[in-house]
Amino acid sequence: MTIAVPSALTTSRRQVEPALRAAVGELDEHTRLVCEYHFGWVHADGSPDGRTGKALRPALVLLAAAAAVDDAPAPFREAAAVELVHNFSLLHDDLMDDDTSRRHRPTAWTVFGRPAALLAGDALLALGTSVLVDPPAPHAADAVRMLGSATGRLIVGQAADLDFERRHDVGLGECLRMVEGKTAALLGCACGLGALAAGADPAVVSRLRTFGEELGMAFQLVDDLLGLWGDPATTGKPVLSDVRARKKTAPVVHALTSGTAAGERLHRLYQDPEQLVGDRAELAADLVRQAGSKEWAENECERRLTAALAQLPTGGRTGPAVDALTELAEFIVRRQW
Amino acid sequence: MTIAVPSALTTSRRQVEPALRAAVGELDEHTRLVCEYHFGWVHADGSPDGRTGKALRPALVLLAAAAAVDDAPAPFREAAAVELVHNFSLLHDDLMDDDTSRRHRPTAWTVFGRPAALLAGDALLALGTSVLVDPPAPHAADAVRMLGSATGRLIVGQAADLDFERRHDVGLGECLRMVEGKTAALLGCACGLGALAAGADPAVVSRLRTFGEELGMAFQLVDDLLGLWGDPATTGKPVLSDVRARKKTAPVVHALTSGTAAGERLHRLYQDPEQLVGDRAELAADLVRQAGSKEWAENECERRLTAALAQLPTGGRTGPAVDALTELAEFIVRRQW
Repeated sequence: MTIAVPSALTTSRRQVEPALRAAVGELDEHTRLVCEYHFGWVHADGSPDGRTGKALRPALVLLAAAAAVDDAPAPFREAAAVELVHNFSLLHDDLMDDDTSRRHRPTAWTVFGRPAALLAGDALLALGTSVLVDPPAPHAADAVRMLGSATGRLIVGQAADLDFERRHDVGLGECLRMVEGKTAALLGCACGLGALAAGADPAVVSRLRTFGEELGMAFQLVDDLLGLWGDPATTGKPVLSDVRARKKTAPVVHALTSGTAAGERLHRLYQDPEQLVGDRAELAADLVRQAGSKEWAENECERRLTAALAQLPTGGRTGPAVDALTELAEFIVRRQW
Repeated sequence: MTIAVPSALTTSRRQVEPALRAAVGELDEHTRLVCEYHFGWVHADGSPDGRTGKALRPALVLLAAAAAVDDAPAPFREAAAVELVHNFSLLHDDLMDDDTSRRHRPTAWTVFGRPAALLAGDALLALGTSVLVDPPAPHAADAVRMLGSATGRLIVGQAADLDFERRHDVGLGECLRMVEGKTAALLGCACGLGALAAGADPAVVSRLRTFGEELGMAFQLVDDLLGLWGDPATTGKPVLSDVRARKKTAPVVHALTSGTAAGERLHRLYQDPEQLVGDRAELAADLVRQAGSKEWAENECERRLTAALAQLPTGGRTGPAVDALTELAEFIVRRQW
């Protein structure tokens, strides 16, 4: 089943890209090239490349603003800020995880070297804050605080993710908290920042932030499911790369802690020092399914989506922005990539 | 000759450390341990260690505030913010440069691994901004903008430094611009932030910022000189490590571009793929001296110190804080570590 990409994704990407390119354009030549390559705007030699990311987070910022306050000016800089911080985390995660491929291309560090990719990530994190305060805006300090809090949680989530790779006793609760930090915090921040920039009441900001957090949980669970049963040709990630890296994703942890025979077998497979590739990786994925964890993750996704949508409409408001947020949320959960 | 450490350094370190520890204390357990080890507060196993850094930047923040406005509350959080960003850059620079020793100890990445050190640096950068806006302060957005600008320049400076390692044609002008970014920007920011937090006029903020920038240039030149002729037992850095890494520091670039016979020999030595260690490293340092570049760097230091001090007293003000800033500036230029 193919699902149409919501027009909000395409529109917001086109609308936010100028602010994003302007921010990256302030960097020194070399760091800029690394960032532009990472964003998919250029090839490694600097010649233009037509690729574009999903731009999910900018879309959430813009739609949340429109859903919160009628005729609010579109918060392009907040949208750019969230996308900059997201891409900082991707650049550094690829380094920490030794990932060699992202979005169907070699990762930046494999092309430009580790120091250049590290520095490019630093630059994007710093720019993410700078675009919020320059030029001055009335809500700038609040926006910096909200983005800073999400960045902090993102880092805690990544620390837990790294820690989990070494451990064999990860519980489902701590695994879901890791996902809250690593994915949900920034999606919640995207929606909250949009509402904040639009001048919404704190209660509306809070509702939209919760919407984004719940959606973020669903988003990551879909990601984990696609990492196990998605088509590498559409996801852009190597087949079963999460299993090969023995990642403790939520479906895997659910299976490991399920108390089922399949969970036990998976546990032995994950502890076995032999490489987890080929048939053994396929077996691991199948054991997750046998343990009932595919079904659990799919149900959990639906539950989170429902919880997210229950936050809409905001303050009794309806209209095209709320409809577009709903459409985007449903698309995220049903997507194949 | 031994020079007494100005009391402002000791005092401000003691005053700012609680804010610094509180900020680092917000991190997850593992990232916190890496940061606390890096700061010298604990050993690798988490047991207390009595080491302390120089805390030059916090001292500049506090003294600049006191020099700018009488009876201004001491800006501890701004001091902590600058120190956090400084230490972010140290953690990441050690990774990028593969440095194994700092402050007489193994660098964090050699103890905790590269991913953990990378993440710890990210966390310090994010905290540096967060402490400026939480809890809210009237000048917070301006402070974030000033710190963000310095961080951006710091990253550009580090990018240039990495680039210089690959190049044999670095000019003195671009080398000094690299130092402006990598060192002077954050020292200027320290002084500017202190004045800003104290509520000083923009002209006074600007003068103190210039004071810090000029002092920063002198500080880095002293660092470069100590890297060539300092005693490793007091500097805490391996002997001639800059030369061994073929770093294009300002004295080295001055020699390479001096048009002297010694400069020519140094050029051949730096281009020779053979390892630059032992006698060959000693020879390189001696060629810098023969080219007149030790003398040039010493004179340039004095010139920068004079330019810095010319910015004081600020707005015709004198008093103990201005005296302490002067004492600190002179100490920095005459220090042996």
